Amino acid sequence: MNAKDIIYLDANATTPMAAEVQEVVKDAMANAWGNVSSSNVLGHEAKRYVERARKQTASMIQAKPGEIVFTSGGTESNCTILHTFAKVHRMKGGGDISVPHIITSNIEHDSVQKPLEQMHRDGQAHVTFVQVDKTSHAVRVADVLEAIRPNTVLITIMLANNETGVIQPIKDLSQAIQNYNQSSENRVYFHSDAAQAIGKIRVSVEDLGVDYLTIVGHKFYGPRIGALYVRNLEVGDCPLEPIFVGGGQERHYRAGTENTAMIAGLGAACELVATNIQTYQLHMQTLRDQLEEELSVALKSHGITFNGRNSLSERLPNTCNVSIVSGAFNGRTVLENCEMVVASVGAACHSKAGSKASAVLLASGIPYESACNALRLSVGRETTSQQISAAVIDICNAVHSINQSLNVSADFHTNDNHL
Amino acid sequence: MNAKDIIYLDANATTPMAAEVQEVVKDAMANAWGNVSSSNVLGHEAKRYVERARKQTASMIQAKPGEIVFTSGGTESNCTILHTFAKVHRMKGGGDISVPHIITSNIEHDSVQKPLEQMHRDGQAHVTFVQVDKTSHAVRVADVLEAIRPNTVLITIMLANNETGVIQPIKDLSQAIQNYNQSSENRVYFHSDAAQAIGKIRVSVEDLGVDYLTIVGHKFYGPRIGALYVRNLEVGDCPLEPIFVGGGQERHYRAGTENTAMIAGLGAACELVATNIQTYQLHMQTLRDQLEEELSVALKSHGITFNGRNSLSERLPNTCNVSIVSGAFNGRTVLENCEMVVASVGAACHSKAGSKASAVLLASGIPYESACNALRLSVGRETTSQQISAAVIDICNAVHSINQSLNVSADFHTNDNHL
Repeated sequence: MNAKDIIYLDANATTPMAAEVQEVVKDAMANAWGNVSSSNVLGHEAKRYVERARKQTASMIQAKPGEIVFTSGGTESNCTILHTFAKVHRMKGGGDISVPHIITSNIEHDSVQKPLEQMHRDGQAHVTFVQVDKTSHAVRVADVLEAIRPNTVLITIMLANNETGVIQPIKDLSQAIQNYNQSSENRVYFHSDAAQAIGKIRVSVEDLGVDYLTIVGHKFYGPRIGALYVRNLEVGDCPLEPIFVGGGQERHYRAGTENTAMIAGLGAACELVATNIQTYQLHMQTLRDQLEEELSVALKSHGITFNGRNSLSERLPNTCNVSIVSGAFNGRTVLENCEMVVASVGAACHSKAGSKASAVLLASGIPYESACNALRLSVGRETTSQQISAAVIDICNAVHSINQSLNVSADFHTNDNHL
Repeated sequence: MNAKDIIYLDANATTPMAAEVQEVVKDAMANAWGNVSSSNVLGHEAKRYVERARKQTASMIQAKPGEIVFTSGGTESNCTILHTFAKVHRMKGGGDISVPHIITSNIEHDSVQKPLEQMHRDGQAHVTFVQVDKTSHAVRVADVLEAIRPNTVLITIMLANNETGVIQPIKDLSQAIQNYNQSSENRVYFHSDAAQAIGKIRVSVEDLGVDYLTIVGHKFYGPRIGALYVRNLEVGDCPLEPIFVGGGQERHYRAGTENTAMIAGLGAACELVATNIQTYQLHMQTLRDQLEEELSVALKSHGITFNGRNSLSERLPNTCNVSIVSGAFNGRTVLENCEMVVASVGAACHSKAGSKASAVLLASGIPYESACNALRLSVGRETTSQQISAAVIDICNAVHSINQSLNVSADFHTNDNHL
């Protein structure tokens, strides 16, 4: 595959840094390299870059600058929340709630699911993995509420699923949790991993009503760092326990010399999103819809299904999860036979999983054969209508090529039987 | 202070990215933005950048590429080691060693000291802070060995102190710990935070004999990320427990989508060090010696002392920690009166500590008045001889200016008394 011919349909895996973002990173590398903690002119200049980025990041999600903590990425943001609730609990000590209880869904990203599994195994927390509804592919508010126990401290549910694109009912959940908290002595906090949603749909913490939100730069044409939103952090409304203690950076919430250049880049990426989200969303939705329409026509004879697409849930505007059901059109094999399309069959971090079905699709209620054959095609800001049409042809050619080799193989076996 | 007139003598706080490093970061931002975990041509290209950086990083310290794990910085590298030994112990369970014991020095960087203090408070570990010798300003091997208990699991001692520049006897300690391990049922592991040493002196894990080493890019003209060396990591000789579990990046030792651009930059910075360390070292030592000589002459009448400089220990070639002893020449006040020199009075992360004496200097045995008056002047690759002479004049002018205002104030008080 030649780099210049690539049609990139893997924006959910990662995105390139926007040109504007790269310029900001370059400027900050050259001009804001002082140590943010230093009380000198270079330190002050670096701090100015960091604080501008904090404002830009906060503004994108309708938060206050003081509610933003910069991290090394989404994994760290998510882990910080889980660490906080394991730790806060330990500090409170025993009683009835000798082990805290955390609720999540069964379709979370590995950076939420794996640490929770580990905490459950290690006895640091009891965890309930609420199953999503197999029709809507989203958690049901009632199911989450039913899972609450007297020792529940945290609910963490992603805003949009990275494989199906299905948007989870975060606003309704927030409202329900607030109602619960008002009528209970216990307070349950609510975190949402917005890694896949930001830059594709408008995300406002005011609207969503969450206590914590995870922000991941490289999913929206920003750098490979992240941030964490914590409601009213400065007045201590929501607890936050640092994983890294040390030099006291980020108001003691995240020690470590600030990665100023990348933080400045994250701010720039957030500002782009804040300014252009409607344009981005419309562009991606138009192309994703074109993609699904053209695929439906081109592969009609094979029978295709769009995983996650349903009338009960909203989906991200850029995500098409499609399976060619008839025949052994394993998603990975189809992609290997494409000459231009670069896409994936699920989360990038599962790319070594062989031809197994995606656990997230199975958990979402997608039938096994569809899950095995799934392709995740995620369009981006730079995708064009011409590329979509070319991609559909490329995928069809791959399918025909697999079909032919299957027929040859079948013929061979038939001949073989004649011998 | 005008940016173009600055004489930067704060290389121990941070350094700008070398031009060559910035070029590599720019190239990687533009051309290696694929997700390293993705099984496609863009993912493979990104992986190539990361693996080249791993080789460059390993090569700089005479390690094997498989022994390097990339992290978000020195704080994360240090915390990962401490986390590992708290966790490994928990997994082993109770018995005589119901709480593990860790030995460190009393002059470590906050990213070692603070988490250890917290672990001690939280009952996760017992910690012995071995006092450095007040003449050599270095830990004594015998003192460290004496502190070993049957439940000691880890010794962590920095390679070079960030304030005095005094190099600690890491090679001798390694040998002594190996001897102990050979004659004991217990195995004690040895970690060294080499943040301040790399790029200033040759650092080889073969020579040092440590099990773990912390690498911090921004201290040697690299990006704001770091790495961790773990001896024979691939065969499991030394334990390593990830802080971040999730997507399984970095062979499951450090989850989170790789910060490819910064990792590539770190590799380039390591290659520069590997190639040029002798030149860098000689250059810095020449200028630091010039600085100390000129300061001695210029401020002779005030009585100055060089903190940490002694015949028993080696020092970093770039670090001059100096106090103007006679008079109230508080280090911070002197720096505030400088017109060109940018330097610090201690670790950048302590810059908000007001005019208090540096805890590290006091712990090193520096008298209180000297510790209050200390200036940390750390030269870099780009410092010139002309700058050194200009810096000395700038500092002298600052001292005279303070002196004059003190005299005016004294006169005023004298007059006052006459009234």
